[in-house]
Amino acid sequence: MKRWIAATAGLLGWVAMDLLNGGAPAAAQELMTEKKVFTLPNFTTQSGRTLKDVKVGWESYGTLNADKSNAVLICHFFSGNSHAAGKYAATDAAAGYWDAIIGPGKAIDTNKYFVLSSDTLVNLNTGDPKTTTTGPASIDPDTGKPYALDFPVVTIADFVNVQKALVESLGIKRLALVAGPSMGSLQTFEWAARYPEMVAKAMPVIGAGEADAQLIAWLDVWAAPILLDPNWNKGDYYGKTPPNAGLAKALTVVTLQANHQDWANATFARRAAKEGEDPAKSLGSKFQIQSILDNAGEARAKVSDANHFLYLVKANQLFAAGGTSLSDAATKIKAPVLLITQPKDLVFTADAVDRTAETLKKGGVDVTHVHIQGSRGHLDGVISMKQAEGAIRAFLEK
Amino acid sequence: MKRWIAATAGLLGWVAMDLLNGGAPAAAQELMTEKKVFTLPNFTTQSGRTLKDVKVGWESYGTLNADKSNAVLICHFFSGNSHAAGKYAATDAAAGYWDAIIGPGKAIDTNKYFVLSSDTLVNLNTGDPKTTTTGPASIDPDTGKPYALDFPVVTIADFVNVQKALVESLGIKRLALVAGPSMGSLQTFEWAARYPEMVAKAMPVIGAGEADAQLIAWLDVWAAPILLDPNWNKGDYYGKTPPNAGLAKALTVVTLQANHQDWANATFARRAAKEGEDPAKSLGSKFQIQSILDNAGEARAKVSDANHFLYLVKANQLFAAGGTSLSDAATKIKAPVLLITQPKDLVFTADAVDRTAETLKKGGVDVTHVHIQGSRGHLDGVISMKQAEGAIRAFLEK
Repeated sequence: MKRWIAATAGLLGWVAMDLLNGGAPAAAQELMTEKKVFTLPNFTTQSGRTLKDVKVGWESYGTLNADKSNAVLICHFFSGNSHAAGKYAATDAAAGYWDAIIGPGKAIDTNKYFVLSSDTLVNLNTGDPKTTTTGPASIDPDTGKPYALDFPVVTIADFVNVQKALVESLGIKRLALVAGPSMGSLQTFEWAARYPEMVAKAMPVIGAGEADAQLIAWLDVWAAPILLDPNWNKGDYYGKTPPNAGLAKALTVVTLQANHQDWANATFARRAAKEGEDPAKSLGSKFQIQSILDNAGEARAKVSDANHFLYLVKANQLFAAGGTSLSDAATKIKAPVLLITQPKDLVFTADAVDRTAETLKKGGVDVTHVHIQGSRGHLDGVISMKQAEGAIRAFLEK
Repeated sequence: MKRWIAATAGLLGWVAMDLLNGGAPAAAQELMTEKKVFTLPNFTTQSGRTLKDVKVGWESYGTLNADKSNAVLICHFFSGNSHAAGKYAATDAAAGYWDAIIGPGKAIDTNKYFVLSSDTLVNLNTGDPKTTTTGPASIDPDTGKPYALDFPVVTIADFVNVQKALVESLGIKRLALVAGPSMGSLQTFEWAARYPEMVAKAMPVIGAGEADAQLIAWLDVWAAPILLDPNWNKGDYYGKTPPNAGLAKALTVVTLQANHQDWANATFARRAAKEGEDPAKSLGSKFQIQSILDNAGEARAKVSDANHFLYLVKANQLFAAGGTSLSDAATKIKAPVLLITQPKDLVFTADAVDRTAETLKKGGVDVTHVHIQGSRGHLDGVISMKQAEGAIRAFLEK
């Protein structure tokens, strides 16, 4: 059972990752890191609102060289945070989510590169002590109360602008690589289109250059359970009962769409949730896949924030690389692009991804498009990245 | 705007169909029908509960021949009813949903066949005067109050058993053809597996022989908004405010998954819902696809019942042809099967459908598998059936 929960929670939680992957032997796991906090006294959003005291967590692996030319930025996925690789303590159950490709001697070699990653604004994991973010759940310094829905709508460009301030605070003028899976790929496209002079190479994984109508509509499906939970109370629930039933269900939808039927059917088939209880017994009697997804969603909801989920949905819906459109972005991007996708992805479908590759090429971008395989669909871009090791090495060396 | 609503509401409403299809010219639309009601004084469900005074609506086209050997049964989809073809009045805006293939001289030729169709138990459309059904919204004769969640869980086999009683009441001993799209295909498989001597030929369209784990989980996503709506009140809302916000959202999920990105992206792209209102303006500002889907869901919710929706979800989740499994059903089915599917279907995926075809063939069933094409995905099995005209004629003649 524990293994199923881990497998199911996969994309939702880096915490659960190692149970899924079996965990790397401690001896091979040399990369250690620590969480730091970056503070911006003032940050002005794309919508024109100036927020005070904006904080995000970040971490790094490897050493910045003298001319600060070896920095790699990793951008995280929807439900993730900046823990991209390594461990905080040798006893940690799991390493960061892309540990398979980031570390000493690995595809993104920390003996050569200084790799950093930061938590986004409105990060989902407000209850995780290793995540620092600023969003609706944060205290507004002007009122002493949580912003709730008074927090401005933020965009992928805002996420990137916070990262840019962090990068510049370290004296870095140009990034050797920007990369990330899923929502991390959106940030990667945004970086490459918005700050082409600062991005030497770009590696978007399991993502597209803009949210199309289909993705916009599906993201509404993700958000729906929160909006219907009476405890959501139009976002005003801090200090009250949070809308965790809605948030849990929202997280189950993410988990389901981020996986693939190959995995779901092979793992659960039509087994009942409780041995001996026919799912036909009552309206509430479940099949195993229902209870496993629900349990994983409920566990994860306890350390997540519903308003942050809704703001993330909005940021993803609004996304078009560079702020206008993919075709416009294609004329701005200078970095060669290594696009890594999974043909079975149910979130960023093969259609959407192929359209992105074609549009970029038409705009003159140097695109290498590589596929990874697996039974997990979208999630393979997080957990099966070792497959792309050779392509990543070749891309970084070219 | 009206055209978009119709297009969006497509699968949800046969009422909206003609706007979508442009409507057939009145002169060509000769087939007329009327709604009748079939009553069973007692009906015992698969779960062993005996319900009194079970009523379902039904209609027919063509004439039953003297030896009652020319009967064709059409089974409806999740959100449909028994209005499979024809019109009730010449002034009707739309004909029944499969009018393209049912009628005088059409693929299922009503000059030759007596075609009938009935509303299922727990039919969604409780507010439609042309639908008659028995379910949670019906008055329990023993209490004088709506059953609500005291209504027993019902299955696709229960739907079929009500149809069997109707068919037998007409003196029909064997059906020349059983056919239906989506949930109608599940009833078709159930008929062929449960009553093999009564089914000469079977034509399941856009469906599979059992609900796999993936479908079971997605059906939970459909139901989630209702369960979270505080007005659902554990199913006890009759005479009170019904959970129409949740039901409307549930219906938008159905519409989205029953369509395809080819349609969504081509129809809506990234246009704003309101001209001049940037979707980035506020959390509630929408893209066009969001508002169109929401409006269609809200309109449809007004004539639908939330508990019936949940019971339909349950019936679909429980489905395995013949009551055990697809592989078991494959050994029982005697009828040749014409399986018509859409490779882009997001509800019954190509994987699931191909697995059904293979399993049936392994069990010795004579399967012809035909694909239809289009930009609507699952919905093409309702609105694009004219493509399959030749295959259907050949199947009926062989």
